[in-house]
Amino acid sequence: MANATNVSGEDSLIARYFKPLATDPGAFALVDDAAILKSSGEDIVVTTDAVVEGVHYLASDPPGTIARKALRVNLSDLAAKGATPAGFVLTLALRSKDDAWLKPFADALGEDAKGFACPLLGGDTVSTPGPQMISIAAFGRVPSGRMVGRTGAKAGDRVMVTGTIGDAALGLEVLKGGAAAKALASDSAARDILVARYRIPQPRNVLAHAVRDCASAAMDVSDGLAGDLVKLCAASGVSAAIDAASVPLSAPAAGLVARGDVRIDALLSGGDDYELLCAVPEARCADLIEAGRAAGVAVTVVGTIVPGNEAPRFLDGAGRELVLKRLSYSHF
Amino acid sequence: MANATNVSGEDSLIARYFKPLATDPGAFALVDDAAILKSSGEDIVVTTDAVVEGVHYLASDPPGTIARKALRVNLSDLAAKGATPAGFVLTLALRSKDDAWLKPFADALGEDAKGFACPLLGGDTVSTPGPQMISIAAFGRVPSGRMVGRTGAKAGDRVMVTGTIGDAALGLEVLKGGAAAKALASDSAARDILVARYRIPQPRNVLAHAVRDCASAAMDVSDGLAGDLVKLCAASGVSAAIDAASVPLSAPAAGLVARGDVRIDALLSGGDDYELLCAVPEARCADLIEAGRAAGVAVTVVGTIVPGNEAPRFLDGAGRELVLKRLSYSHF
Repeated sequence: MANATNVSGEDSLIARYFKPLATDPGAFALVDDAAILKSSGEDIVVTTDAVVEGVHYLASDPPGTIARKALRVNLSDLAAKGATPAGFVLTLALRSKDDAWLKPFADALGEDAKGFACPLLGGDTVSTPGPQMISIAAFGRVPSGRMVGRTGAKAGDRVMVTGTIGDAALGLEVLKGGAAAKALASDSAARDILVARYRIPQPRNVLAHAVRDCASAAMDVSDGLAGDLVKLCAASGVSAAIDAASVPLSAPAAGLVARGDVRIDALLSGGDDYELLCAVPEARCADLIEAGRAAGVAVTVVGTIVPGNEAPRFLDGAGRELVLKRLSYSHF
Repeated sequence: MANATNVSGEDSLIARYFKPLATDPGAFALVDDAAILKSSGEDIVVTTDAVVEGVHYLASDPPGTIARKALRVNLSDLAAKGATPAGFVLTLALRSKDDAWLKPFADALGEDAKGFACPLLGGDTVSTPGPQMISIAAFGRVPSGRMVGRTGAKAGDRVMVTGTIGDAALGLEVLKGGAAAKALASDSAARDILVARYRIPQPRNVLAHAVRDCASAAMDVSDGLAGDLVKLCAASGVSAAIDAASVPLSAPAAGLVARGDVRIDALLSGGDDYELLCAVPEARCADLIEAGRAAGVAVTVVGTIVPGNEAPRFLDGAGRELVLKRLSYSHF
């Protein structure tokens, strides 16, 4: 982002909406082309995720929830890596300079930047004739060598997830008028809960330190629990057995499954959960659960890491293997 | 970017095309959600710039030149800040998984990543129904506190630029069939030079160390020399007097100006130069020029920083002030 001399509409946009968010001294109040991340020998963890209008959010979504989602999907990655947020840079591809959209977008982004202690460091604002897109690269700090990777899961580790799984996929279905929308036609409270889970992820940064202390491997669940577990297992050279009945569901999701309106596998492969998926040695499970309790976040054991190279198995309450039609969301 | 288990088209795309570029150990061969930038107490310099199809490049541009431009516009920022490249993350918004486009794109990106010692650390690949977009956040290292900012220019400093100014704007005009295309209809060599300057910036990273040693303020010229100088002066609280006749022009550009086919002010306000603009104390000018000579890059004094808050003035050979119709490219 450039500076505030008002030589262009781009600069005045940045000065008006984004300069107030650039509270970190390394951001130089956005008057430079670059920002500085100070380091005292910690490792800097870098992650990047983009959200595209019509793909990751709906054009009709409120600008504030779009901003929060764009930042939070990145904060979720930092949480899974055990990193403390340090800041982010923003690329904003806009069709027009629409103040009615930009003001709530920037206000909400600023609130989240403050709430998660992850200040705006810089960025780039470009025009696009096509769908709007927000790309964020976020930075975190971990003590040297302590980033939690995907490769450390060991046979015998328990598989744990935070929060509840599948709500966001149901929320999207509600917004799109799918089966969940019809099934919940008379339950606006349930619809609202699910839509909020789709629009505003709740990244578990409050558990980052505990993940670093307890987990042998971790990632966030962004493309669907089933597919993301495949990735974690493959990276670690292990497999897993998951008890589908123990996968934590919200009350609205559990109700839909119990009434037969939604199949459990749609929840296991649905995207946008932004919960944490961890492999945790048995001896550390209680610590992670306790850290979750202290933070008000459920942490649930859903299965076990087992030896082998085959895909993880999802078993129903009777021990029968669930055949999942698809594992996760893919862009291509 | 996620891993290589081929659970999705996205993952196979990443494994096939981008994993070979992820040579830095901190990239974890793209099998994680995050990368690590090691630091031994240096400052990490962060910059981000995006290129959008139809805005920053043409859909008809070769994929390889698009890749190089996307990375090089960021490398140019690192050079201007006096930083040594450390790596980058890539967000790629694609309409489709088109191997005929992706292979040359990734090959060229890999060549530049190697050539500039700036490895791919991670990224995100998303689908878009609209124009393609490549957003890169690049990282560099400087000794603590040594990033070259925009705010340090002092009255008496000389204003220096690298390379030649205005070629890229002319190259774009050639591609779009504008006045430059008509004037050069019979000079394909000149057209090729200008188009290459538009498509493939030549970032001056080879001079980053000298800029750190010599310049009191610096930025890269990306939106037009005139407008970018306004920004540098405003950030430093100074003004400048520029001798337009001393602004370095390539042979094709100088020919177009001499024959009256193009006005000098179009070159001074044209974008996409990706040269360095530096304020340099008189005593250090010779050092920067010598560093340029050693690296094969012209470094030219074009004016002087003067006290005051008014906009920099561009004077013609007779000392008359040029009135620029516009200062720079703006997206909004």
